[in-house]
Amino acid sequence: MQYYVDGFRGGDPDRKTAAPGVRDRDPFAPLPEKVDVLIAGTGPAGLCLAAQLAQFPEIETMIVERDPRNITKGKADGINTRTMEMFQAFGFADTVKRESYWVNQTAFWMADPENPAHIKRIGRVQDVADDSSEMPHILINQARLHQLFLDVMENAPTRLQPDYNWAVRDLVVDPDAEEYPVTVTLEDTGVDWGQTRTVRANYVVGCDGARSNVRKAIGGELHGDAAHQAWGVMDILANTDFPDVRQKCLISSASEGNILILPREGGYLFRMYVELDKLSANERVADRKFTREDMIAAANRIMAPYSIDVKEVVWWSIYEIGHRLTDRFDDVAPGEDRNPRVFTAGDACHTHSPKAGQGMNVSMQDTFNLGWKLAHVFQGRADARLLRSYSAERWLEAKRLVDTDHEWARIMSAPPGQSALDAGDEPRFVQAFKENLEFTGGLAVKYDPSELIGEPTHQAFATGQEIGRRFHSAPVVRVADAMQMQLGHVAEADGRWRLFAFAGAGDDGQAGGAIARLAKWLETDAASPVRRHTRANEDIDAVIDLRAVFQQTFDALSYEGMPSLLKPCKGRLGLQDHEKVFCVDHKGLGDIFDMRGIDRDQGCMVVVRPDQYVAHVLPLDGYDALSAFFAGFLLPVGQAG
Amino acid sequence: MQYYVDGFRGGDPDRKTAAPGVRDRDPFAPLPEKVDVLIAGTGPAGLCLAAQLAQFPEIETMIVERDPRNITKGKADGINTRTMEMFQAFGFADTVKRESYWVNQTAFWMADPENPAHIKRIGRVQDVADDSSEMPHILINQARLHQLFLDVMENAPTRLQPDYNWAVRDLVVDPDAEEYPVTVTLEDTGVDWGQTRTVRANYVVGCDGARSNVRKAIGGELHGDAAHQAWGVMDILANTDFPDVRQKCLISSASEGNILILPREGGYLFRMYVELDKLSANERVADRKFTREDMIAAANRIMAPYSIDVKEVVWWSIYEIGHRLTDRFDDVAPGEDRNPRVFTAGDACHTHSPKAGQGMNVSMQDTFNLGWKLAHVFQGRADARLLRSYSAERWLEAKRLVDTDHEWARIMSAPPGQSALDAGDEPRFVQAFKENLEFTGGLAVKYDPSELIGEPTHQAFATGQEIGRRFHSAPVVRVADAMQMQLGHVAEADGRWRLFAFAGAGDDGQAGGAIARLAKWLETDAASPVRRHTRANEDIDAVIDLRAVFQQTFDALSYEGMPSLLKPCKGRLGLQDHEKVFCVDHKGLGDIFDMRGIDRDQGCMVVVRPDQYVAHVLPLDGYDALSAFFAGFLLPVGQAG
Ligand SMILES: Cc1cc2nc3c(=O)[nH]c(=O)nc-3n(C[C@H](O)[C@H](O)[C@H](O)COP(=O)(O)OP(=O)(O)OC[C@H]3O[C@@H](n4cnc5c(N)ncnc54)[C@H](O)[C@@H]3O)c2cc1C
Ligand SMILES: Cc1cc2nc3c(=O)[nH]c(=O)nc-3n(C[C@H](O)[C@H](O)[C@H](O)COP(=O)(O)OP(=O)(O)OC[C@H]3O[C@@H](n4cnc5c(N)ncnc54)[C@H](O)[C@@H]3O)c2cc1C
Repeated sequence: MQYYVDGFRGGDPDRKTAAPGVRDRDPFAPLPEKVDVLIAGTGPAGLCLAAQLAQFPEIETMIVERDPRNITKGKADGINTRTMEMFQAFGFADTVKRESYWVNQTAFWMADPENPAHIKRIGRVQDVADDSSEMPHILINQARLHQLFLDVMENAPTRLQPDYNWAVRDLVVDPDAEEYPVTVTLEDTGVDWGQTRTVRANYVVGCDGARSNVRKAIGGELHGDAAHQAWGVMDILANTDFPDVRQKCLISSASEGNILILPREGGYLFRMYVELDKLSANERVADRKFTREDMIAAANRIMAPYSIDVKEVVWWSIYEIGHRLTDRFDDVAPGEDRNPRVFTAGDACHTHSPKAGQGMNVSMQDTFNLGWKLAHVFQGRADARLLRSYSAERWLEAKRLVDTDHEWARIMSAPPGQSALDAGDEPRFVQAFKENLEFTGGLAVKYDPSELIGEPTHQAFATGQEIGRRFHSAPVVRVADAMQMQLGHVAEADGRWRLFAFAGAGDDGQAGGAIARLAKWLETDAASPVRRHTRANEDIDAVIDLRAVFQQTFDALSYEGMPSLLKPCKGRLGLQDHEKVFCVDHKGLGDIFDMRGIDRDQGCMVVVRPDQYVAHVLPLDGYDALSAFFAGFLLPVGQAG
Repeated sequence: MQYYVDGFRGGDPDRKTAAPGVRDRDPFAPLPEKVDVLIAGTGPAGLCLAAQLAQFPEIETMIVERDPRNITKGKADGINTRTMEMFQAFGFADTVKRESYWVNQTAFWMADPENPAHIKRIGRVQDVADDSSEMPHILINQARLHQLFLDVMENAPTRLQPDYNWAVRDLVVDPDAEEYPVTVTLEDTGVDWGQTRTVRANYVVGCDGARSNVRKAIGGELHGDAAHQAWGVMDILANTDFPDVRQKCLISSASEGNILILPREGGYLFRMYVELDKLSANERVADRKFTREDMIAAANRIMAPYSIDVKEVVWWSIYEIGHRLTDRFDDVAPGEDRNPRVFTAGDACHTHSPKAGQGMNVSMQDTFNLGWKLAHVFQGRADARLLRSYSAERWLEAKRLVDTDHEWARIMSAPPGQSALDAGDEPRFVQAFKENLEFTGGLAVKYDPSELIGEPTHQAFATGQEIGRRFHSAPVVRVADAMQMQLGHVAEADGRWRLFAFAGAGDDGQAGGAIARLAKWLETDAASPVRRHTRANEDIDAVIDLRAVFQQTFDALSYEGMPSLLKPCKGRLGLQDHEKVFCVDHKGLGDIFDMRGIDRDQGCMVVVRPDQYVAHVLPLDGYDALSAFFAGFLLPVGQAG
């Protein structure tokens, strides 16, 4: 982690210096009348976006929440590896890793064929496949994650905090207004209950959950099915003789239904999803008046011969599975040709079964996709057209997700006899589970070619960094200090692009090699995207951050002769940045060139978006293609030739 | 990390529930008149002790500091691997790992024989030898570490905070008083400057630095030499063409002297120790009026042909090397036969050259040694005789340290010509550096046999866990959740003893095996130290915490049949603890039995003190020896037979 570039500042390095003129947070200070971005809702979607936008003092962000404070428990608890990779960029992955339960193995239990009234372990699967991600799949209380995002916001230069007790009631967009075209009606849900006031915003993002008012205001509707299957969920402190209570378990009894066990943070707590009765077509789950005692009783029936002795029910809820999706994630109607002003994200535009643990993860991935695009627009780096890509990219992903999730929930709820039979060696749900691991890990997301995603013409140069999918980290060593680390961890949630230049055989970075030529061209050529899209008063890596990776080990490289763009002077004091040059690991953790299928002979460039997705793979001398790619959506704000 | 054992509690899991009746921290609240332990000084020694004692609501601890607040910069910056292992027990090693600079390699530079006016890199050494510790050697601002300890104190059940602006002026011990025998005179250094008041204490610990008033009050004196060598130290933000500026470097020029470069946290800051002139016998360093400009000029001369362009001097100081030691670390005069009431720790009783980076580390190790002993006495677990072992153990270590440090400083300051010549292949300072790595890592500490350290009769059962040295962690897998982790990380700074039972060949923990027999004996036998030294109303592992390690991989073990002492019910709710059973790693990180020389055939017990030192190695059936060991210093407070 890098800090002090603008001079020494004591204390917690995560706490950034406040920007001048941050909003007065006195409880009696009035709400702002105009903001750049208004976010509705402090769930995972809203907080992830707020944490991202809070990094940019040039954007006035407001985040309103109907409730009086952060939740304390309940709701989702699964964080997949992809989301952990994103948390790394926000700086709190280590905290989460330390506090959370790690899903290392998933165990499968079914009715014992010899005694169908009893369940029996039929197998186990390693939950995160080797080298699928450097991150674990973890489980933790959603409220705690909210707090970690709130800390990021509060520590950011803008010292952003939510405005609690304000609900978005409605909004209108004036398509002709250039400035603050969205007028939002807020309703006080606190002391002055029911009173309303308006705020004008340049953009509004509805992260206000499944009953989203923002979605309704822009005419969105959730389509899909209700599965007519009630599930109960409860977080409990309990003792049991069930031996796998500290492993994620899918338990399928002969005739009493299914349970999903999710051990949780702290070593004692765990969650159970218990399958309750099927609902008839017109029945709502609330009509059935399930109690927590019903749930505990069902669990004990399903887990026989084992039993659970519940000491404290921390939280519980009854659920109806539904997979639903709106037609679009912004306010641009089909056929309309304009840039969006209002967006929806998370449960506001797609809902899932809790069982595959996707809801919370996808919600955050939505707004991580949107955040840097909004920042680019406000920073004057890109035209507002860029914002059209949000709905385009995320809707397709949500569609795939809802479809897969649907199928998965069907398999999980299928009568066990049936699912156990038709798959030869392994019960169908075990097979399906394994096949879905990449998907449930959040690693299968792939954006289609667009302005922001290049064509796979040169994909062969880096077969393990698929264009459109997330950048897949691997171990490297930072040359200046021989630090072993993950290459992907250089990416912070700072709205910047990374350009990873992998050196070809023999290239050691010294003058004359392909890396030196590329660095020089990027630093000096009039056609270089670094020069074209970076303002004269900005750090040279403010938009596009070049990093080089060499095939030699650190002790075989000479740091002296590295190109100047790889040791740029930055910040108020013009201090040299020594964290741009990497090489392969020398201590047996693996060779990144092999692990990610990088062409050893010629090397290549991998262009990575601010949200960690691979945008392009190009040869090291693909200068024109690189210029053209960035010119496709970035404005020419830089120094002329 | 385990939490919620007494029920769910939202928020940061590091923040413990406050104990009833914690002290009123209102700024206008009076100081307490009597306390159990009064600590003087909030340097590393004082804060480490305060963080330890803060965990025990039964101990009223007060920590006073002459200065008005925590320091913000400067002083020491090196944390060796041993101290990092201790930070792990306090819960903030991960934070430090993330924020700090890691010393991966140390580079050596000397005058180039072909051009003696220029320096040249002559070699590099991996700074932390493979498997010497699972922790890195790191560099970070001392003020930040203080803050991390302050956070631990504030989050502890006692919500302990320092009383700033109070200095210990003097103290007297009434040897006849049973209760609160130490009367301490405090002097106000704040608004009411010079006013005094007294506090009575059961124990006083002087962590008040090299000019300690506590030491003086008990008649202690620092003996030793001043090396008559002035060194300058400065923390700077600077650019340089010196290529190893992000590696720890020992630079020895032909005729301009020596420099030590220590890169620091954040990627830009670094520290330089610059050798300045020799002092004559009666000269004090202050007389020489060195300026920071002198230091920068000296650095530029020593580093030629490279140069440094300083942008900001964050902190600087001029130093005189001294290695000094008092005769004893408590108030018991030679020949007196009584238990101590006053202790000194850290710089108050031994000082070192900054160059080997020991001062801060040893200071914390002092009070980590003392903390659990005080806790044992206040918890009624041990007689106050136990406190005699503090001076006995730590004085000998300090003596060894001062001697080694002395030798090291001499080598480092020796004229380079001389040191370069007499060592064949490698210059003498490089050799000495390598030979000293275990020592500078803090890993060479070895306590002699005593009541608290067993005789090495059975050392052969665990050759890699030497009795008297710190428990050497290694990778294991926790069976209940297949979690890969470090065995040593089960140790928290909670004043408890760990008993690691390594299973012999074939033992899978089921009834009949040696582990099951041991667990049963510990849980039920009248002679068991667990029964004898644990009160009926305490958790069964409150004093001695049994953990088992098996030779099979997790999937070959059956958790069901494990002995009940390895799945004990704990806390207010009687919840089962599932974090007691371990086995070898199945993913290639190494086999703990091989790595630590554990007898595969018979297994063994390794007894580990609350401060992480190996107290004993015994055969798995060494019941009598185990009973006798604990009976040597723990009181029989437990359930009779
Ligand atoms: C009761 C419950 C239980 C759940 N249990 C599980 C589970 O067991 N497993 C699982 O994977 N997922 C579960 N989920 C779903 C999971 O929590 C969501 O997928 C995830 O939180 C989606 O994040 P989001 O930010 O899109 O929406 P949400 O987390 O729903 O956040 C929406 C926020 O907007 C606020 N809000 C709503 N309307 C307005 C308004 N008009 N103005 C201002 N603020 C508004 C809400 O108070 C809320 O804070 C559960 C959800 C709920 C509600
Ligand atoms: C100026 C300076 C520079 C240093 N630089 C380095 C370095 O570069 N490298 C290195 O390894 N080590 C350095 N050290 C030494 C290192 O900081 C110490 O070894 C380490 O801090 C020892 O910890 P301690 O807790 O024993 O004592 P200290 O850190 O000295 O803490 C003593 C505390 O007690 C307080 N105090 C003093 N008297 C009283 C009193 N009567 N009543 C109440 N409080 C009192 C002091 O204000 C201070 O906060 C430096 C020390 C100093 C003072």
